[in-house]
Amino acid sequence: MAKKKTVKKAKKAKSSSKRSKKNGSTPTKEKIVGLAESVVSHIDAEENPSLNVPIRSLSNVSFNTRKKIIEMGENKANRPFFDLGNARRFMQTMLMSSELLKLQDQFKTTSIRDMFYHCKHTIEGTREETFNDQDESDPIIEDLEVTLGSLREELRVFANPDGAMVGPAVIRDRGDEIDLSRMGSGGWAVPSIVEPDVIEFVKCKAKYVLLIEKAAVWARFNEDRFWESDKCMIIHGRGQPPRGVRRLCYRMVHELGLPLYVLVDNDPWGYYIYSVIKQGSINLAFESARMAVPTARFLGMSSYDAAEFDISPSVTIRLNDKDIARAKEIMAYPWFQDRRWQREIKHMLKLGVKLELEALSNKEFSFIADTYVPQKLKKGKWLD
Amino acid sequence: MAKKKTVKKAKKAKSSSKRSKKNGSTPTKEKIVGLAESVVSHIDAEENPSLNVPIRSLSNVSFNTRKKIIEMGENKANRPFFDLGNARRFMQTMLMSSELLKLQDQFKTTSIRDMFYHCKHTIEGTREETFNDQDESDPIIEDLEVTLGSLREELRVFANPDGAMVGPAVIRDRGDEIDLSRMGSGGWAVPSIVEPDVIEFVKCKAKYVLLIEKAAVWARFNEDRFWESDKCMIIHGRGQPPRGVRRLCYRMVHELGLPLYVLVDNDPWGYYIYSVIKQGSINLAFESARMAVPTARFLGMSSYDAAEFDISPSVTIRLNDKDIARAKEIMAYPWFQDRRWQREIKHMLKLGVKLELEALSNKEFSFIADTYVPQKLKKGKWLD
Repeated sequence: MAKKKTVKKAKKAKSSSKRSKKNGSTPTKEKIVGLAESVVSHIDAEENPSLNVPIRSLSNVSFNTRKKIIEMGENKANRPFFDLGNARRFMQTMLMSSELLKLQDQFKTTSIRDMFYHCKHTIEGTREETFNDQDESDPIIEDLEVTLGSLREELRVFANPDGAMVGPAVIRDRGDEIDLSRMGSGGWAVPSIVEPDVIEFVKCKAKYVLLIEKAAVWARFNEDRFWESDKCMIIHGRGQPPRGVRRLCYRMVHELGLPLYVLVDNDPWGYYIYSVIKQGSINLAFESARMAVPTARFLGMSSYDAAEFDISPSVTIRLNDKDIARAKEIMAYPWFQDRRWQREIKHMLKLGVKLELEALSNKEFSFIADTYVPQKLKKGKWLD
Repeated sequence: MAKKKTVKKAKKAKSSSKRSKKNGSTPTKEKIVGLAESVVSHIDAEENPSLNVPIRSLSNVSFNTRKKIIEMGENKANRPFFDLGNARRFMQTMLMSSELLKLQDQFKTTSIRDMFYHCKHTIEGTREETFNDQDESDPIIEDLEVTLGSLREELRVFANPDGAMVGPAVIRDRGDEIDLSRMGSGGWAVPSIVEPDVIEFVKCKAKYVLLIEKAAVWARFNEDRFWESDKCMIIHGRGQPPRGVRRLCYRMVHELGLPLYVLVDNDPWGYYIYSVIKQGSINLAFESARMAVPTARFLGMSSYDAAEFDISPSVTIRLNDKDIARAKEIMAYPWFQDRRWQREIKHMLKLGVKLELEALSNKEFSFIADTYVPQKLKKGKWLD
């Protein structure tokens, strides 16, 4: 029964592939079809069909000191269909890839939550659900990303979008030309999928990109029209930036040749946000090559800024135990071994306080945009 | 010492007011100055200066069955300066209002977090901080909102912005004309402050507004260009909509005469999101008159939809204890006493399941936009 089902799925994928060729094919579509065809050929040869899925755990992740990004290694796990421990995940992978192919055919994008619901059903003649919850379907999508070597965005699925951008540039978003210097106070909401077939850069007069941790601080820079006077793109990702914001920064750095500066709170979480933008993350190591920006510069806030800018001790916040533990963890990461980074983090621990971007408003509402950022840029006071 | 300080603050506010008159005044500015002047006149008369602050607790909140909004009553608390229990809050209120006046003078907007940092300092000659944390400063801003009768947005402070909108309309945002039908996949990010001096409606061909609970579901409607074929504005607020989104909906209903339809998950939290949009909330009862939309229609999802649209039981989710308790709480609210609402909630409890918007993708990715919403609108199947 289960076997028959799989074959049917595979054949379905194959027939979809024929249809897709009529519609025009994409590299991603070809990859999905290729996966299905390899399974079919196993079956035709009366072999136990299996998939080789790159391993996504810490054991298969390392920091590439030359490229300066966190990378996934070469280890793969074999997932045979006729195997009690693997049959369910095999079925899920085939089902998911067949449904992902529909997105390609229909030129649609959708959310990972949608994909869970879309693929969920009771398997005929059983009481077994294809997926019990989203915790089961998300890893299958990630398995497919690494197996196919396609970004999730190329598979046309996304997590929740977030973030906004403005600046002296014109983009084309699904055919609409959008002048990012005429976006008022709201800005252009950054979508989840910013691949070149959706978002094109038409014109750009910006000299750099400033990625700001917080939406409210970004609003300050926008209201003060900092992007106009300083000729830069300003973008925020509301804390840890979502994939759309990371990928857009990557594209602006690589396609427009712009340097990327990162502005975060001075606390271990700020350091970490910066490091994910720069080196990628352990969880998503397989995406570093197309998301991480090793040239990203940490503009601030630094633990030396309070003294440098004469910030009142009244607005610093004492580090709590969690902050201290996290700072020590971060100090031990291979990508924070640079002497200047060790000094930066040690100094924070020594002072025993953290500092939020908003603390700069203790001086003047616009101190951050009028004085702090311009001065740091002018003096070249960043870490990289 | 403390007394002297207060007087100084009050005088400072007064002198700011003179300056502000040169810069041109606003009703909000006048109100802040008026507050300061009344305190000064107490002092000049050698009286104990005091403030009358409307009470923001549940005891002073009621549901106005005629207007169909949650309203704040008339009760006020007197906050005298020479009173151990009130001196600190009095000082904080004066300090905050003086700094809020600066925002008016400088034509700036800022975040409530910024205001906390901006007002925080060690009181001269003491070890006392003006504010210890933001939990102290936020209520002071709310006190000032109700005391002055000014929306937070009129005081030019905001919480984090969120949400996006597109549709067949042109707006002006801080002078930039933005065509909301040419916003690509991202959309226009809704700012926190959408008052008429920031956001103007230039043109609108939309026939209604569709407020969608989730960003990812909004993305489906945008990708399918539903707003174009159905001539409507589509807006999301990522769960419980932030004030900017609520206020913008309010303005579209009142100034553009558009009906507002709300599309949320079928669970107690979805009902609640709808009810806040419609009647306002207990916490922010003082804002209902300028934020709540009593004519808002609950388009879905209804507990009857699973049967109506033949949704597979596979994608419904069993109600947990928290859901059940919350549903019963909501059933008891005066504003859910309508017979049809009681029936709706009882039916959910009877079925014992909830249903997410994304569950509709179990049929087709675009089922929600192609079939579900159009059919409900056509048949007039909403609750209000």
